[in-house]
Amino acid sequence: MNEDRDIVIIGCGAGGGTAAQFARKTDRKSSITIFEKGKYPQYSKCGLPYTISVRIPDLMDLIEFSEDWFKKANIDLFLETNVEKINAKKQIVFAKKGNRIIEKPYSSLVICTGAKPYIPPIKNIDVKGVFVVRTIDDVKKIISRLSKSKKVTVIGAGLIGLEMADNLYKKGLKVTIVEALPNILVHSLDEDMAKIILDKIPNNISIFTNHLATKIEDSNAEISKVIIKDQQTGDEKSVDTDILILATGINPKTSLAKSIGCKIGKTSGIIINDKAETSVKNVYAVGDCTEYPDFVTSKPTLVGLGSICVRQAIAAGINAAGGNYKLLKGVLQTHTSEFFGVDIASVGPTKNCLNNMSVVSAKFNGTSLPDYFPGGKPISIKVLVDEYTGMIIGAQGVGENVAQRINMFACAILTGLDVNSFRKIETAYAPPIAPTLDVVTLVCDAVSMKLERKKR
Amino acid sequence: MNEDRDIVIIGCGAGGGTAAQFARKTDRKSSITIFEKGKYPQYSKCGLPYTISVRIPDLMDLIEFSEDWFKKANIDLFLETNVEKINAKKQIVFAKKGNRIIEKPYSSLVICTGAKPYIPPIKNIDVKGVFVVRTIDDVKKIISRLSKSKKVTVIGAGLIGLEMADNLYKKGLKVTIVEALPNILVHSLDEDMAKIILDKIPNNISIFTNHLATKIEDSNAEISKVIIKDQQTGDEKSVDTDILILATGINPKTSLAKSIGCKIGKTSGIIINDKAETSVKNVYAVGDCTEYPDFVTSKPTLVGLGSICVRQAIAAGINAAGGNYKLLKGVLQTHTSEFFGVDIASVGPTKNCLNNMSVVSAKFNGTSLPDYFPGGKPISIKVLVDEYTGMIIGAQGVGENVAQRINMFACAILTGLDVNSFRKIETAYAPPIAPTLDVVTLVCDAVSMKLERKKR
Repeated sequence: MNEDRDIVIIGCGAGGGTAAQFARKTDRKSSITIFEKGKYPQYSKCGLPYTISVRIPDLMDLIEFSEDWFKKANIDLFLETNVEKINAKKQIVFAKKGNRIIEKPYSSLVICTGAKPYIPPIKNIDVKGVFVVRTIDDVKKIISRLSKSKKVTVIGAGLIGLEMADNLYKKGLKVTIVEALPNILVHSLDEDMAKIILDKIPNNISIFTNHLATKIEDSNAEISKVIIKDQQTGDEKSVDTDILILATGINPKTSLAKSIGCKIGKTSGIIINDKAETSVKNVYAVGDCTEYPDFVTSKPTLVGLGSICVRQAIAAGINAAGGNYKLLKGVLQTHTSEFFGVDIASVGPTKNCLNNMSVVSAKFNGTSLPDYFPGGKPISIKVLVDEYTGMIIGAQGVGENVAQRINMFACAILTGLDVNSFRKIETAYAPPIAPTLDVVTLVCDAVSMKLERKKR
Repeated sequence: MNEDRDIVIIGCGAGGGTAAQFARKTDRKSSITIFEKGKYPQYSKCGLPYTISVRIPDLMDLIEFSEDWFKKANIDLFLETNVEKINAKKQIVFAKKGNRIIEKPYSSLVICTGAKPYIPPIKNIDVKGVFVVRTIDDVKKIISRLSKSKKVTVIGAGLIGLEMADNLYKKGLKVTIVEALPNILVHSLDEDMAKIILDKIPNNISIFTNHLATKIEDSNAEISKVIIKDQQTGDEKSVDTDILILATGINPKTSLAKSIGCKIGKTSGIIINDKAETSVKNVYAVGDCTEYPDFVTSKPTLVGLGSICVRQAIAAGINAAGGNYKLLKGVLQTHTSEFFGVDIASVGPTKNCLNNMSVVSAKFNGTSLPDYFPGGKPISIKVLVDEYTGMIIGAQGVGENVAQRINMFACAILTGLDVNSFRKIETAYAPPIAPTLDVVTLVCDAVSMKLERKKR
């Protein structure tokens, strides 16, 4: 144990908070300091959309670890404190809280600066009634606006966009969703799988794919309409809107990392290795500001998932405190969400990301229970397999309990399991729980048969 | 394709029916014949307990494939037809339907004779009101008896025993459960995990572990009491009972296989290899009458699970029809069930089965959702790891969605994944679905830490 170890963490989101916890677990004596720009300690960003519909009753419920918790763990948390400068040679961080400058030397520095929402080039976007969904304060503003809103437009049909649309719909608003790409959920699902969700979206929600929001019209500087344009035909439509939500992705915040020379990758994230180290000595980075290889394609990937952020933070926290923890060689990108009463889940690249690879895939539409047991719910699973090795490289699910089913595929991808062996795994069977041959098995049967036919 | 191929299958349970289907898929032209002793075509034995509480409304719902279905698939199904003799040299089966003798030559024979309930040595067991739970006709008799019954005693606290107890309880009966072993569910859960279920069993159900049922008392040849004896103290108790259910395990039915010289294993099951072949040429066997190695311990194991039966039947059906399908080198024994509102699931051996192996294990009690999301339900998972290799060799779960979680461990056991890698797998996370670090991850963290401490 090193009594002189000084660990400094920039940012107290899921990344910074988790890194601090694991650093403390690894070394009980080191000094640990977190500088957080905002006014809240570690809270769940992913929970924000659910506070709209009051599925999570109070925004403050999202706080996972209180200031008091950090105090008890002997972690110095400075809120509303901005890191202004880093001297990487002398290993000193300069932070500002109010008018006070804090000069803090470090032996290890963990950068968890996260990301900021991408703001698309929409004319007149500065009117009142346009919001992003990134922080507690963003959602406070949205909730306050909702009291005088009846019609909402959500730009972006990715995870956050659809989660927001669902929760706003549950809250009773008239919802319009606008997506620039030809499909929804392009980072999670192939077109055929996304179609299942499209069919589940209630009819009174309007959804425009392949449409760009080009302009906002206002009345007394308050949003009144958004103009959207069909990218194929060029036709324009005007959508009455009291509130506009931007859910069009994120950009990593890397200016501090850049200022000390951390290598930035093609994706614009900070490059880290399997110990969560940046290219600068004793400097780690974690979460949405980082880039890491995809497990299957090895392509650099911008990390935008809480589940990855937390795992990187475990590595950074342990290593910053003198431990030795290695990440997997790439991110599996396992993820899940739920909207309009349907769960989706996905692991590995979608077909679009695999354009140079020979892939065989199959989809199976089944149910959660044996046919004879009442109450079975639909499940669709699609599996992507490398044609030459037979290895499972991706899986997507829509329906009952797909998250845990997709986790099983995550394990298969990690271990390089071939689809022919996967389909032989005995899955847990009982009439009220799952059929003898689960959808995970049946979809792999279908892929195996396709592969066999190709070999003939 | 071989037009002269004659496939004969003995038994039309899940094994025989599935073997026939897959034989037909493999070879569209072969002749396929099934001889079934009973009067029903393929039905789900595992569904029987749920017809008691009417969760499955009608016993006939259990029939998965009708006589008509087999007809359309060009499979000759003979019901109420008993195979009397097999001439393995000449490859002929002799079956009897009523007074008619059917002489059927075969090129491949699949034995799916299943198992019969084990009847424990209880005095006076032949009185009216004592039942086993193996067939539709057994349960018809039970249902008819229930109209004049208020108190039921279930002997055996394995899967079937507890499923029956739960469904009889739901039906409104006063339930007593008697188990000879010191714990319930010994083939599924270690003592600490079984304890969680014990705590969930409603207080007005009496449960006696470590007790033997020794004697039945009757009034006019109808059961009135069962005498049970504490195996530690020798104390006897008398339990008022209108109906007694025996759920004390099964014995494989192997007399036909023995008569043609099929090798029988230590467990008293028919030994089969990874192609589902017996030791006799062109003779396959499948399901509850067979013995196959356990995947982890390699010990011969009596197959008593529908999920395994069906997978062996796929292999036997395909291979009998000239295909080439290999089973995994052992059975993972993945299984699940549900009683008293709680799911259990298990894969791999329990600790008791691993007495010669150095095992490190940990248990984690968590919840299905992040703490801040309302509605999370308890989940406990225990993981068993080989101390020297770090490989996962068993996992047990009690609580929300444990079946699919245990399937992920089944994949890990098959691939020889070590616990330190498993815990690094990104699991699917979203606030309404699962926490960032799922219980499957946290329990593996706990095991990994124990392993590290051992190495120091």
